[in-house]
Amino acid sequence: MAAVKRVYDFSEGDASMRDVLGGKGANLAEMTRLGLPVPGGFTITCQTCIEYIENEERFPEGLEEEVAQHRAEFEKAMGKRLGDSVDPLLVSVRSGGPVSMPGMMDTVLNLGLSDIAVEGLARQTGDERFAYDSYRRFIQMFSGVVLGVDKDRFENAITAMKQTRGVDADTDLTADDLKELVGQFKDIVAAEVSAETFPVLASDGRVGFPQDHDVQLRLAIEAVFGSWNKKSARDYRALYRIPDTLGTAVNVQAMVFGNKGDSSATGVAFTRDPATGAKEHYGDFLVNAPGEDVVAGIRVTQPIDELVGVLPGAGAELDDVMDLLEEHSTAMCDIEFTIEREKLWMLQTRTGKRTARAALKIAADMVDEGLIDREEAVCRIDPEQLDQLLHPQFDPTADYEALTRGLNASPGAAVGAAVFSADDAVTAEAHGRDVVLVRWETTPDDLHGMVASKGILTSHGGKTSHAAVVARGMGKPCVAGAEAIKIDQVNKVARIGDVEIHEGDVISLDGSTGDVILGAVKLVPPKPSEEFSRILEWADESRRLGVRANADTPEDALRARELGAAGIGLCRTEHMFLGDRKQIVQDMILADTEEERDAALARLLEVQRDDFVGIFRAMDGLPVTVRLLDPPLHEFLDDPRALEVEIVRLECAGGDAATIADKRALLARIDDMAEANPMLGLRGCRLGIMHPEIYALQVRAIAEATCRLIAEGADPKPEIMIPLVSVVAELETLRAETETVVADVLAAEGCEIEIPIGTMIELPRAAMTADEIGAVADFFSFGTNDLTQTAFGFSRDDIEGKFLPRYLERKILPRNPFETVDAGVAQLVAMGCERGRSVNPALTLGVCGEHGGDPESVHVFGEIGLDYVSCSPYRIPLARLAAAQAALSE
Amino acid sequence: MAAVKRVYDFSEGDASMRDVLGGKGANLAEMTRLGLPVPGGFTITCQTCIEYIENEERFPEGLEEEVAQHRAEFEKAMGKRLGDSVDPLLVSVRSGGPVSMPGMMDTVLNLGLSDIAVEGLARQTGDERFAYDSYRRFIQMFSGVVLGVDKDRFENAITAMKQTRGVDADTDLTADDLKELVGQFKDIVAAEVSAETFPVLASDGRVGFPQDHDVQLRLAIEAVFGSWNKKSARDYRALYRIPDTLGTAVNVQAMVFGNKGDSSATGVAFTRDPATGAKEHYGDFLVNAPGEDVVAGIRVTQPIDELVGVLPGAGAELDDVMDLLEEHSTAMCDIEFTIEREKLWMLQTRTGKRTARAALKIAADMVDEGLIDREEAVCRIDPEQLDQLLHPQFDPTADYEALTRGLNASPGAAVGAAVFSADDAVTAEAHGRDVVLVRWETTPDDLHGMVASKGILTSHGGKTSHAAVVARGMGKPCVAGAEAIKIDQVNKVARIGDVEIHEGDVISLDGSTGDVILGAVKLVPPKPSEEFSRILEWADESRRLGVRANADTPEDALRARELGAAGIGLCRTEHMFLGDRKQIVQDMILADTEEERDAALARLLEVQRDDFVGIFRAMDGLPVTVRLLDPPLHEFLDDPRALEVEIVRLECAGGDAATIADKRALLARIDDMAEANPMLGLRGCRLGIMHPEIYALQVRAIAEATCRLIAEGADPKPEIMIPLVSVVAELETLRAETETVVADVLAAEGCEIEIPIGTMIELPRAAMTADEIGAVADFFSFGTNDLTQTAFGFSRDDIEGKFLPRYLERKILPRNPFETVDAGVAQLVAMGCERGRSVNPALTLGVCGEHGGDPESVHVFGEIGLDYVSCSPYRIPLARLAAAQAALSE
Repeated sequence: MAAVKRVYDFSEGDASMRDVLGGKGANLAEMTRLGLPVPGGFTITCQTCIEYIENEERFPEGLEEEVAQHRAEFEKAMGKRLGDSVDPLLVSVRSGGPVSMPGMMDTVLNLGLSDIAVEGLARQTGDERFAYDSYRRFIQMFSGVVLGVDKDRFENAITAMKQTRGVDADTDLTADDLKELVGQFKDIVAAEVSAETFPVLASDGRVGFPQDHDVQLRLAIEAVFGSWNKKSARDYRALYRIPDTLGTAVNVQAMVFGNKGDSSATGVAFTRDPATGAKEHYGDFLVNAPGEDVVAGIRVTQPIDELVGVLPGAGAELDDVMDLLEEHSTAMCDIEFTIEREKLWMLQTRTGKRTARAALKIAADMVDEGLIDREEAVCRIDPEQLDQLLHPQFDPTADYEALTRGLNASPGAAVGAAVFSADDAVTAEAHGRDVVLVRWETTPDDLHGMVASKGILTSHGGKTSHAAVVARGMGKPCVAGAEAIKIDQVNKVARIGDVEIHEGDVISLDGSTGDVILGAVKLVPPKPSEEFSRILEWADESRRLGVRANADTPEDALRARELGAAGIGLCRTEHMFLGDRKQIVQDMILADTEEERDAALARLLEVQRDDFVGIFRAMDGLPVTVRLLDPPLHEFLDDPRALEVEIVRLECAGGDAATIADKRALLARIDDMAEANPMLGLRGCRLGIMHPEIYALQVRAIAEATCRLIAEGADPKPEIMIPLVSVVAELETLRAETETVVADVLAAEGCEIEIPIGTMIELPRAAMTADEIGAVADFFSFGTNDLTQTAFGFSRDDIEGKFLPRYLERKILPRNPFETVDAGVAQLVAMGCERGRSVNPALTLGVCGEHGGDPESVHVFGEIGLDYVSCSPYRIPLARLAAAQAALSE
Repeated sequence: MAAVKRVYDFSEGDASMRDVLGGKGANLAEMTRLGLPVPGGFTITCQTCIEYIENEERFPEGLEEEVAQHRAEFEKAMGKRLGDSVDPLLVSVRSGGPVSMPGMMDTVLNLGLSDIAVEGLARQTGDERFAYDSYRRFIQMFSGVVLGVDKDRFENAITAMKQTRGVDADTDLTADDLKELVGQFKDIVAAEVSAETFPVLASDGRVGFPQDHDVQLRLAIEAVFGSWNKKSARDYRALYRIPDTLGTAVNVQAMVFGNKGDSSATGVAFTRDPATGAKEHYGDFLVNAPGEDVVAGIRVTQPIDELVGVLPGAGAELDDVMDLLEEHSTAMCDIEFTIEREKLWMLQTRTGKRTARAALKIAADMVDEGLIDREEAVCRIDPEQLDQLLHPQFDPTADYEALTRGLNASPGAAVGAAVFSADDAVTAEAHGRDVVLVRWETTPDDLHGMVASKGILTSHGGKTSHAAVVARGMGKPCVAGAEAIKIDQVNKVARIGDVEIHEGDVISLDGSTGDVILGAVKLVPPKPSEEFSRILEWADESRRLGVRANADTPEDALRARELGAAGIGLCRTEHMFLGDRKQIVQDMILADTEEERDAALARLLEVQRDDFVGIFRAMDGLPVTVRLLDPPLHEFLDDPRALEVEIVRLECAGGDAATIADKRALLARIDDMAEANPMLGLRGCRLGIMHPEIYALQVRAIAEATCRLIAEGADPKPEIMIPLVSVVAELETLRAETETVVADVLAAEGCEIEIPIGTMIELPRAAMTADEIGAVADFFSFGTNDLTQTAFGFSRDDIEGKFLPRYLERKILPRNPFETVDAGVAQLVAMGCERGRSVNPALTLGVCGEHGGDPESVHVFGEIGLDYVSCSPYRIPLARLAAAQAALSE
């Protein structure tokens, strides 16, 4: 086996080697290759980090020698040596993985200094104070990062020294003070570090700060490797879905100094404005300062455009380098530089983080500038970021303290008076107040209250709880599962620790972060830019997947249309059975006679027809897929436990016997309909089989609404969708019944139209037998929410707050399968598509679960070859973009 | 396209043409081929019946001509003609499909008689009374069966005639009386039948009984075809799973008469005793009687062994024919014969229905006689029938009237005093009383009561409800879902209509039929015969599938072993958490401190270890697959609704404030654990991840029990099974934790043994990703109950009483997928096997759902290539037999 190359000189790599050298290393190599002024150095590969970890945190065989050889070559090239008593080389040791994890990993600067080398540095620079300040910084940083010494010990020593000397600032300390501090620092290290943990430190019989630069280098490299596995780094990777197997590279680079007097400086800059995207250099610098001080914000920095005035030569060179880098990478660059005695050194370049707004503008501008083409521009935008642009936000300049943080369940921000029931929300809203609905968890019963509220806050439930899903559908901010909040619904008060929120108290929510604030935070409205529309239009040119909306009302439909929906992929009808219609529905369910039931059905027919007229009109000319009633009927009835408690209270209070008897009878009826697992019970098409009159009513309402609009000269395109089919005979039966009703209505109204009839594929058995079901369906819409629930045997309502967090933490699941479609579930979708098309090549295939609005899932659906995804109106831009990226990535 | 042959002369077919000619037609053809005395005739094929039905109940083109041609040939062969005035041919028209449906289909006898032909018959036989009796029988039967005339009208006319004549018996009526009756019968037909329904009957200008034998024949054939679609026939087929697409053949055959005086006779016989299987002819005959009188039981018949004495020639010939038939078919035959003036005619032969006991004896005897081999004997037994032999039965001679009928949920019969709670059952049993537990439905809480009872009766739940499943597991009779019974648990009374059953009233249940009887019905014990064991031993020689038992106690384990189990495939542990241990479990779940929890765990460890010692000892040398805890923890806690009602009542009654506060706190804890869909919630391996201490306790108990038995010199073979895995990481995690605990115990006890660790595959995602899961499992056990629930999205508890009956009735499902494994679910099992073996060829594959005891499912599992099925102890013989049949059918 050929030996693996583990160490690369900067001159040996290039930008394409990101996976091997990490982002920083690859970019340093690329800049070196471009002939830019980069201090010399070498990179140890990311794979070596993983080797180290798997080797029980020991250097793999041969690494030490390879590092030593590269170090020697590099010393030779620089003409300096580490630890040299005359002109010592100092190096930085920095981490840098393939994916940026800012602030997560460890860095050591000024490595190579020792009691001997510091004297060399003092001599070489003629600046003893600088030399000892560098040394004390090195001891401080190395001991904290590598040896794990408590950093406060050093800070305390500095503070004591300043008190003794009667000075305020670090810079007021003299070279002698710093020499004394170095002595104190070495004592601290000797006292804090044990020979058991770091046997190598005991080389001279006494444990202390290492004077041997080889020991320093080796320990620093190990510390960087080890920092890959720190809890904070692991958490960060879990959050941003960065694989643990990538590892980090280690960059060892010659130090340059921005703190060698007024001809030296250091800074960070962007090639364009990361907030607005404007095409102008953006950034800060400090004269006579070490690099870390710019980021630390200790001193007031100067804007980058003043650099040319301060240091004309190096400033102009920097401008040229930045332009070159942007042109070369065709990306907005985020750079770090140091000017040492008027000589510019480039220390880092990478693609700059930017706001959604800036990302759009930069991509569009670069197209206009001829730097990239439209397809590239489309691929440059993170779809998830678009969400920022579509909801009101907290004013970025606002200052506030969060009471608690829940789940960021639906983006955007809201401010309003707290209310504790849906009815209170409606009343307050009717009086012109902005309200935030606060509930333990919401149910379909709370819908009118959610409509009336600016935002929703729950103490229970996950990102796909009822509150979260409905809020996202409505485009309303929602913070869900804020478990620290204890809600006393009866007394209308919520408690967070000692803080009480009473009805009417104003609170603010940020659904993008999960923050909950007592009091009002200033909001700023969303204003999608011109570039937003341009880039989405370019996306539309590239994508193959259609994007439809999940929308149940004319308002949602219009919004979806504005945001670019090509139709409605899921129009749920259960909301049409709630609110003021709930009583009619209850009358229907609990009717004692056919007449009573028929009367209730007739009333429902009328209102449903009007619902459909409104929705079809809003989507004129575009398809609207109407799902027939799906939830179990008992969801429309009273909660039996509450009813029984009410009855018992009535009995205790000696209530009216007839009333009690009536309520007992009602309770018996409700109990009779109760189910142990409603999710798997009498719902979906099973309702249609057991209660044909309900589906007949809905189909009639759809057909009548269609005929009415056709008579008006409109172009309605309804599609009827039968939910929860598990065997083909269900669809055969209901399709036949649906066709009969449709034919009746069309004949009676003298109207001609083909109404496609299809089904949801949301049960594993339906996917497995799609080659039977496909033969009697005009379309499939994959209901990936229920498919995920049944494939995993996970009840979404039950697991999100309970074991799912633990599962994610323990990496039993790589991510929440209700947010991003799981690979096993995707297999079922793919199987359903393939089998369905095998018997019916004309079958239209879509997906209407929550996953339709998740970029990664949209990629998967694109690969599977679906015709469209359907998602909440506010996720449509995101889905359009993700769909284009999916197509372009092929 | 060649014309389809729709009509076959008896001489054209043979026994192999059952699917075309029906059972009766094929057997008539076979007897004709063997040269036996069969009256001539022809058969219209089963496929023609389906053609007729699909052709809107009209003769397909060409059929009329084909029938006419065969009729002409057959008349020529017989030397007689239908409707002839001199020597008329009379025919029977009988149905006969590929699968016997006794009594379900229509028959017409004496067809061909008319006003003219009856005179010819009188002349030809010299017996005017016989001729007119035949004619009136024909009119009566034809009008009832073909024309739909109310049969009572004819019976009333006969009764009136007998009154007028002052006689008692039909046989006392004279030829003239019968002539007069024929006239009256024709008037009845003319009055009852309309020209609209039967236009053909109005041929001579007046609607009446048809005189044209072609019209008679055509209408009779149509009536037989039409009877295939009668509701009763459809229901019968649904019950016995006979496909609707088979159709029935129509057999048109020359009539012979057993009622032509004392040299004539008629009878039915079996070649062996259908009740005991004894090798002796068995049956009855009547001298001078038409065939239908034997079956109708109007007259007292003579035993068949007396026939030789009465009609020696024909009697001896019959004996020979029966022996020939049995030898030829190598099956016990059920035959019909008629002797017309000393001439024997064979009218029918078919394989005889027999009791389980007889079936076993006949099969075993036939092997001893060299008629069939052992493998054939094994295939001759219907596995479902074996169930009859393993449970006490109602005395077959007992006379009783059922109060109501529920579902036949667990076979066998029970008699005992009604009790309405599990505790009452235990108390009564302790006082030496036999009791039947009567509950709305049972829960795991009722287990001790079920153990104490002779049988279980529930008014709710299906064949796989808790009561049914547990009762079958215990081998106790259970009638479930007897919905007519209203149970008042509080007052300990059950009402069925006006009848009340109070505590202590003796009731009887037949779990094989679902009958519920007030009072005691005599029971007879099961005594499986010697042949039972012989045939099961032969089955064991042929089968490839292993058979294990689902058993949770030493008693069940011993019983399973006796019945031939090769191990325990599913030892559930949740029962070990109930009864007197429930309090400990509650203490564990609700513990406030680690100490309290650890104390409860320590107590549980001790009792669980003893449980396992008992089971492993009972199964010494055989594998015992222990499933770690599966149900959600809240199943072990109080019902929150009942608790809240209790609290409200306490509050009303001014109860102790501290008690109320405690109960409220408990309620809050329980509510916090509540789940919307417990079936899909925190259970199975999810418990193991969230509460590692519980699985650790169970694994420790298993390992310690194993070590103890090894120390005693025994040979325990435990296997540890992790339930409800959906992602491989669950199994990886729990396998590692299990291995750690096992290693700890083995090291501490100084004991060596390999304990295989495997998983249940009971979620669709697990089956889909079995190529990941298989790599970390030693075995898979398919939990087809949960797999069916999740693949279909069916909650078994919720659907069996609700929409499943409607689904079966409407044929949306061909059968209950919880009884016989569904094809879609079987696909998942097959996929799981294939993918699992693809990464781990050594993987052991079994199934432990209820389907393991269903013969048809066992076939499916055999084809998929599983290693074993596991089922309730009492289903083991059945599974052994079904497994052998599956292997032999390949």
